[in-house]
Amino acid sequence: MSITKENILAALKNVEDPDLKKDLVTLGMIENLSIDGNKVSFSVVLTTPACPMKEMLENACRNAIKHFVSKEAEINIHMTSRVTSTPTQLTGNIKNIIVVASGKGGVGKSTVAANLAIALNLNGAKVGLIDADIYGPSVPIMFGLQGAKPKATEINGKTSIEPIEKYGIKLLSIGFFTDPNQPVPWRGPMISTAVKQLFNDASWGELDYLVVDLPPGTGDIHITVAQSFPISGAVIVTTPQQVALADAKKGIGMFRMEAINIPLLGIIENMSYFTPVELPDHKYYIFGKNGGKELAEMYNAPFLGELPLVQSISEAGDAGIPVVLQENNPSATAFLQLAQKVAQQVAIQNDKANTKK
Amino acid sequence: MSITKENILAALKNVEDPDLKKDLVTLGMIENLSIDGNKVSFSVVLTTPACPMKEMLENACRNAIKHFVSKEAEINIHMTSRVTSTPTQLTGNIKNIIVVASGKGGVGKSTVAANLAIALNLNGAKVGLIDADIYGPSVPIMFGLQGAKPKATEINGKTSIEPIEKYGIKLLSIGFFTDPNQPVPWRGPMISTAVKQLFNDASWGELDYLVVDLPPGTGDIHITVAQSFPISGAVIVTTPQQVALADAKKGIGMFRMEAINIPLLGIIENMSYFTPVELPDHKYYIFGKNGGKELAEMYNAPFLGELPLVQSISEAGDAGIPVVLQENNPSATAFLQLAQKVAQQVAIQNDKANTKK
Repeated sequence: MSITKENILAALKNVEDPDLKKDLVTLGMIENLSIDGNKVSFSVVLTTPACPMKEMLENACRNAIKHFVSKEAEINIHMTSRVTSTPTQLTGNIKNIIVVASGKGGVGKSTVAANLAIALNLNGAKVGLIDADIYGPSVPIMFGLQGAKPKATEINGKTSIEPIEKYGIKLLSIGFFTDPNQPVPWRGPMISTAVKQLFNDASWGELDYLVVDLPPGTGDIHITVAQSFPISGAVIVTTPQQVALADAKKGIGMFRMEAINIPLLGIIENMSYFTPVELPDHKYYIFGKNGGKELAEMYNAPFLGELPLVQSISEAGDAGIPVVLQENNPSATAFLQLAQKVAQQVAIQNDKANTKK
Repeated sequence: MSITKENILAALKNVEDPDLKKDLVTLGMIENLSIDGNKVSFSVVLTTPACPMKEMLENACRNAIKHFVSKEAEINIHMTSRVTSTPTQLTGNIKNIIVVASGKGGVGKSTVAANLAIALNLNGAKVGLIDADIYGPSVPIMFGLQGAKPKATEINGKTSIEPIEKYGIKLLSIGFFTDPNQPVPWRGPMISTAVKQLFNDASWGELDYLVVDLPPGTGDIHITVAQSFPISGAVIVTTPQQVALADAKKGIGMFRMEAINIPLLGIIENMSYFTPVELPDHKYYIFGKNGGKELAEMYNAPFLGELPLVQSISEAGDAGIPVVLQENNPSATAFLQLAQKVAQQVAIQNDKANTKK
């Protein structure tokens, strides 16, 4: 078959995005197609730079052209991405807001939020992080930013807070605005105002993902965030403990309430097991086993993986350098994979929402 | 010296309560003194049945009489207790309200509250437990009371909730009044009302200690409880993690605020280390080391001890039988000792408050 744009596109119609269950041409993912003799070059515009199937899709395109058009084609594919969004989600230049939540505190929610944000950025996305855990903001410690004070500038007579940039992430924490040794015994309405300011009064610029570390539980902040901002989806963090799972169910229940209605991107089980250095084959299921996976099955939600209880994760957080930044650390790999799964779920949810319309 | 009431009391004036730094006679702890020839009998009324110095004080009384009065005395001491309170603390028939708090969630606050309540009861005290963790009530699971519904009776036209009794504890949890699979996305004022009802509208009867499991953080419930009820003191639970310690400081700061002003009974470090069965000599400090102790020193507060990360504690909680009820379990012993230290601190705070007046 001759190497023409039509034939190439016809061939590429055989390559399906396994998540979105449609072919790349229909999805509008093929751009800049040009032919020069035997030379075929085009871009594949993925829904996220953190696409876990990038390599697989590139190979599939190559094979389809060789198989359906010509073995002689010299194929040059530029794999790129344009993070999807839905019209209702778009707030300013923020394409997707991902909330990280847990029913129970202390399950590693902030650790997941921080590492997820950095991992999305390492994959090539523009990422912001809001630490909305008003009672226990952990981002300042986890990013080594204790005592940091974001600049506030006047733009058109309106105060604009400048997020602090670290490890490629633009971030704001309620902890930047409070004394770390003083409590914040604020009543509900004050909290709502403070959290809204982190979203509305900051110069976030363009972001593919804004990750929000919510406080544990189901309180004022959750209602405020859910009702004030368009959320792409929620990631639920739990440990395998019954008491944590029970609280996680409440969290899921809240996101599913009609008045809130936020898609569940999936469930992460943290502190799944502990493996001592001296006994690398032993897994101690200190908090029980498989609770997160069973919870995901119960709610028919994606299970995003289990993260072991590892001293280096806790130490890295305390030292201000999240573990995902450590090379050759298995936990870093785990978080990079997690970020891909989350990005994948966001793309699926966006496609669902856009298809409905 | 002859065996007379006067001589016996003079001798007992040499026995000092090491916590209250006063002698037993001055403290009014000697009651029902009777002499019959060589036979001397009296009661020592301690400030708590969970007094860790019970045996030591009994021996000291015996020795003082033998030494100062007569070697021939046949001494019969009845060690008993009347839990102290302060006039301002007394709410109905509840002598002392102890709040268990943490800055950060998931540090084992509910585990400590449940085991503390049972341990105080095992020591002989009348104990109630309120689970005020409105977003993640753990008491129903920890006491094996999922689905339990407390009875409500009409007394003089006023509804009175009957606490549920289990393991010798009268208990109420906000979890008894909500669907475990549904969230409680209540705004602040609704929460305050709900929590006040657990205190005011329940037939607690006479209690030496009412233990209150507060939610993590420093929010509406804390302000409500602190300002509505007379609190004997707060127990702070933390892990050795920096992010947990940072939040614990906020919690401590809140209790020390002038408008709240609740004495700090002490700090408990939980999940201090993990020891695998196969390596009994290894302590893995997964979350860091000595953070709780250092926090206690920083605030000049009693360090109430460290509790290891033990699978049986988590399992026991999930199974509905708190670990303190397991015989021959080292964690049970640890919780019994913890309860004694807490009771001791309550007595010390009460004595301070009563002396000031």
